[in-house]
Amino acid sequence: MTRPSSVPPPVTAVLDASSRWLPARLGEVEGLLREAIAGHGELLGADAGATLAAGGKRLRPMLVLLCAGRSGDGAAVRGAAATELVHMATLVHDDVLDDAPLRRGLPTVAATSGRERAVATGDLLFSRAFALLADAGDARSVALLADASVALARGELAQRRDAFDLGIDEERYLYRCRLKTARLFECACLLGREEERLREFGAGIGLAFQLLDDVLDVSGPPERTGKARGTDLLDGTVTLPLIEAAKSDPGIREVDLRSLDSAGAETLCDRIAATGALERVRARALQMVADAKQALERADFAPEQHHLLALVADGVVQRYS
Amino acid sequence: MTRPSSVPPPVTAVLDASSRWLPARLGEVEGLLREAIAGHGELLGADAGATLAAGGKRLRPMLVLLCAGRSGDGAAVRGAAATELVHMATLVHDDVLDDAPLRRGLPTVAATSGRERAVATGDLLFSRAFALLADAGDARSVALLADASVALARGELAQRRDAFDLGIDEERYLYRCRLKTARLFECACLLGREEERLREFGAGIGLAFQLLDDVLDVSGPPERTGKARGTDLLDGTVTLPLIEAAKSDPGIREVDLRSLDSAGAETLCDRIAATGALERVRARALQMVADAKQALERADFAPEQHHLLALVADGVVQRYS
Repeated sequence: MTRPSSVPPPVTAVLDASSRWLPARLGEVEGLLREAIAGHGELLGADAGATLAAGGKRLRPMLVLLCAGRSGDGAAVRGAAATELVHMATLVHDDVLDDAPLRRGLPTVAATSGRERAVATGDLLFSRAFALLADAGDARSVALLADASVALARGELAQRRDAFDLGIDEERYLYRCRLKTARLFECACLLGREEERLREFGAGIGLAFQLLDDVLDVSGPPERTGKARGTDLLDGTVTLPLIEAAKSDPGIREVDLRSLDSAGAETLCDRIAATGALERVRARALQMVADAKQALERADFAPEQHHLLALVADGVVQRYS
Repeated sequence: MTRPSSVPPPVTAVLDASSRWLPARLGEVEGLLREAIAGHGELLGADAGATLAAGGKRLRPMLVLLCAGRSGDGAAVRGAAATELVHMATLVHDDVLDDAPLRRGLPTVAATSGRERAVATGDLLFSRAFALLADAGDARSVALLADASVALARGELAQRRDAFDLGIDEERYLYRCRLKTARLFECACLLGREEERLREFGAGIGLAFQLLDDVLDVSGPPERTGKARGTDLLDGTVTLPLIEAAKSDPGIREVDLRSLDSAGAETLCDRIAATGALERVRARALQMVADAKQALERADFAPEQHHLLALVADGVVQRYS
């Protein structure tokens, strides 16, 4: 079976289980992504090109394509590419904010080209996403994606506002995750198919994805995550593992995150892990995926499509097990 | 006549010359701008709100409204607000890039709230612009604005790439200005009225606007511009006044922009001014405005509308005379 290069393991299960249409359509998405970035100014697309080449799981495009199904048309492929462009834009901007040196084990745009170019590169990716949908006259898709982008920016602002605040509770954390992660997953599903019941499915696996990402930040190992353990803690981002750990080890709330260095962050990671918080958060994420799959049952998909979407949901979890 | 508060002098000529419809519609635009920013997360809209309250000339919204004319509908008001939102987004991001402390004499978002929040605030403004148009189902307007936003980001990237390069020539400078400034003026006109001949008008006054802005950076005075003289030079941005000055004072190309401090920048400003370059660039800008007004003649507007658009074109120049 033809398979886009650099596809990470969890995704292969979906590709293996699908007939040829999914890989073919994912290939079209890659083509659109390259096109969206090429021809936008000499060597200047290089940064965006590097972000594109760095790959990623293409989970959001896959959701668009799978929700649209085998009979999906060009609109689904465009929606898939546009969603990934917005996702890439936020990654590039996040790395500016975090002064992150590495993403997926490779240097970030902010690190190689300076944050000036990184901000503009992110803006370019954002704009191209909307241009891609609008040029096809697809106002509904633009509206969905614009609303999700508003949510992303609000989530980012909320996270900045909450930074270093150990009083953040679970409710506030989940609110932020919904804005910052779940809404784009939801949007991806709705871009594929106009079906309100898909919101619950998309949002559920998006939330689970974020929870597990936050577990990985604490658990590592760096060889697998491509970044140092405790990166969130060093940024002052209070996530569920910490909130959960503080329930059984309240002293954790007394730690001064602002004075943490990387060794201190690793120690705090160990302390969080020692409470069993990681297992509890992982279990929550698994339950969210199970609930999302139940929501999927109600969405009335053909068997193959249903099966593949359930595999994507499982893939979100499997990469962490 | 009711007039939005904080409207700067050049714009008043247009408002004075118009009957009540223009101020009324500009008021609707302000309402949409406030709405677009409000309700997006607690105090978090504060940064965007500060940017909004800082005012500005609202030149781009005025172009949209005037090109649409007295009979323009809600689409023109939305287009006007969306254009200003994109403009505001780029200002907020520019200030992150430049580490600028002041904008229009007031502290920038980047300075008051940190560049982290400023990047996210800019993203929020961008997203709201597209959401505003898309929610009304206006795919044509989204396409226009998305293309202009792509151009803006490319222009920004081009400027970053050219930074500190004294080999930049006039052609390259004008290319950058077209992307970074003229395209959004052009877009504003086309959002108001689907008329290809308006491109030349919009692009012409946009280019003139940028040239005059670059003259102001050299000429000051800071009390009027709200920022120190030579800010562009300190950023390494090579503009037409410098390129023009180097023609009669070639030694200017030998200056090491990277080692410039603010005193050195002021001295270089004086040296540029001494060549008469500022007058020559100002004359170029005036000619561009004259050409733009000629293009306007061919666009077949009703007399009142034509008159008001010509006043906007004059306003671009008058603020500098």
